Amino acid sequence: MVQQNNKQVIFSQIPSGLPDPKKDMSIRTSTMDLDAPLAKGEFILKTLEISVDPYMRGRMRDASIESYAPAFPLHERMTGDTMSVVVRSHHPDYKVGDLVYGRTALGLFEEYVKVDADYAKQAYVVRNDAKENKLPLSHYVGVLAMPGMTAYYGLHEIGQPKKGETLYVSAAAGAVGQLVGQFGKAVGLYVVGSAGSQEKVDYLKEIGFDAAFNYKEGDLEDNLRKHCPHGIDIYWEGVGGKMLDAVLSVANNFARIVACGMISQYNLEKPEPIYNTMNIVTKRIKFDGFIIMDHAAEYEDKFLKEVTQLLVSGKVKYREDIAHGIDQVPEALVNVLRGKNFGKQVVHIADLEP
Amino acid sequence: MVQQNNKQVIFSQIPSGLPDPKKDMSIRTSTMDLDAPLAKGEFILKTLEISVDPYMRGRMRDASIESYAPAFPLHERMTGDTMSVVVRSHHPDYKVGDLVYGRTALGLFEEYVKVDADYAKQAYVVRNDAKENKLPLSHYVGVLAMPGMTAYYGLHEIGQPKKGETLYVSAAAGAVGQLVGQFGKAVGLYVVGSAGSQEKVDYLKEIGFDAAFNYKEGDLEDNLRKHCPHGIDIYWEGVGGKMLDAVLSVANNFARIVACGMISQYNLEKPEPIYNTMNIVTKRIKFDGFIIMDHAAEYEDKFLKEVTQLLVSGKVKYREDIAHGIDQVPEALVNVLRGKNFGKQVVHIADLEP
Repeated sequence: MVQQNNKQVIFSQIPSGLPDPKKDMSIRTSTMDLDAPLAKGEFILKTLEISVDPYMRGRMRDASIESYAPAFPLHERMTGDTMSVVVRSHHPDYKVGDLVYGRTALGLFEEYVKVDADYAKQAYVVRNDAKENKLPLSHYVGVLAMPGMTAYYGLHEIGQPKKGETLYVSAAAGAVGQLVGQFGKAVGLYVVGSAGSQEKVDYLKEIGFDAAFNYKEGDLEDNLRKHCPHGIDIYWEGVGGKMLDAVLSVANNFARIVACGMISQYNLEKPEPIYNTMNIVTKRIKFDGFIIMDHAAEYEDKFLKEVTQLLVSGKVKYREDIAHGIDQVPEALVNVLRGKNFGKQVVHIADLEP
Repeated sequence: MVQQNNKQVIFSQIPSGLPDPKKDMSIRTSTMDLDAPLAKGEFILKTLEISVDPYMRGRMRDASIESYAPAFPLHERMTGDTMSVVVRSHHPDYKVGDLVYGRTALGLFEEYVKVDADYAKQAYVVRNDAKENKLPLSHYVGVLAMPGMTAYYGLHEIGQPKKGETLYVSAAAGAVGQLVGQFGKAVGLYVVGSAGSQEKVDYLKEIGFDAAFNYKEGDLEDNLRKHCPHGIDIYWEGVGGKMLDAVLSVANNFARIVACGMISQYNLEKPEPIYNTMNIVTKRIKFDGFIIMDHAAEYEDKFLKEVTQLLVSGKVKYREDIAHGIDQVPEALVNVLRGKNFGKQVVHIADLEP
């Protein structure tokens, strides 16, 4: 009987403002007997990659408040997109060696996860195609998971892009933004992005953005008018606040605002005011919020097929910012909320081959 | 040679804030020789009804500022929806006695209008069906013109109503709101409205609204929660400002905000701030602005057919607030902007039968 140390990421306290990685989250070390008999339908996953994403801030709330993603239960394991390998199994559909994707808000943040058949059905999907292509496993919690599907679905289904239009992407060097821009280039848009450092701005140009600027320098509206000489037809809204207000003022008639988040507002006690909503009427703007989890079931196959192809062919690049070890999950999440990550933030937990 | 006195409504000055009916507009008396020979393609209209509408405030601007509806040219005749009768004609398609509708932003505000063939083509439509049914001619500048089409198109095409959902209508006793509510009842919605006096609230219940309240009394959000016990699925946005902010907070997941105006903001130097835009993401709200003039050409036939039928059968009622005489046009427009009208504001200029 081998008692394996098994670290878990725990939601320990409801934050006010920016979460504290030591107080609001914690690492709990339990043990798991990896050799103990499994009940029928059970299996054990070894976690390889964990994704930390901005929407998780919204889950760090009092469970009595309803929202689109369930609140993290206090003093329990946190959850999100994960990639794992089956190390033991008493379930016919999850075989030892299978690679398994843990769905958004459902993959458990723990080094070894014992799963029963009921939970497996909603939370875990075998993804052995990941063995066949040469893509990093971390891609399967980012570009090929929730963030990638958010970008692909949002741009195409809500943005309704038409060749030659201008797409402006906020938070453009992040997990979602860098993809939105590249998907936009692939369908012939003029793509402009903003990010919070010169290094990120340089990267955006490197991956094909037509123009990019540092939103921390100069007047936002001036920057938008300068870098989007034909106005804005599609705005990828991940930021909110002053950025949204400036875009409403610069947007073209019939612009679409594709809103999947407002990261600048998540840690404020009171949100920033928006003054320019009248433009929604006068410019006939469509300002549509969406959450990819509403569409994942019917959209996933199409998305995986098309985007895997874009990655394998090298047409789309995906930059990741990788932390190492489960201890780093709380800090990595807080870094994302502070805009400190450069590319998709992932925490690498363990190698597939020991 | 009979020189007929001919009064015109003139845009005389760009207002700041609420327009002044004496300074920013004026009545100019010219004369017209009704017996003088007409060039080929010319005809003379006698104006019967003039519509004044909130969107006209946006046209009282500096012509260098672009917006969806053209600015009124300074010191020229104002324009809008009108209903007239042809009194003389040298144009084969406009015969003496024909009833003629002057399109939104194009019908000239003047007692007698001399029209040439070019202007007629874009601005004036023969509407002799108005002779056949028993509807008041004033209906043809309101429920059967721009305000009615705004209500019908917006509710159906943007609101996407599903039986049993809750529709909340702001400015519900106005030209558009009273129709939105009745069209909503006709497709099985639970309809709630707000207006600015007890008399208007009573009227809303009389025409079939399930609930109604005076927005000037009590807390807006409390009122919305009380009168919309199942939340809000469709919000008819004609008001903006605090009302919009309260609705964002009370709206259900997947709510649609149908935005055709924000009358509370038109006369402010700086718009009121909106704080609750984050709900657009978390609740996956669709907040879509529209201007009916973009859709009128392809939608008009269907609209006229269906809504005329609803009126003739008595299924939909339309309350009008009628001023008398062209001198009253400036004051009537300002009353609309102040919410003083009760029902669709029309100015009756002359009777069809002398």
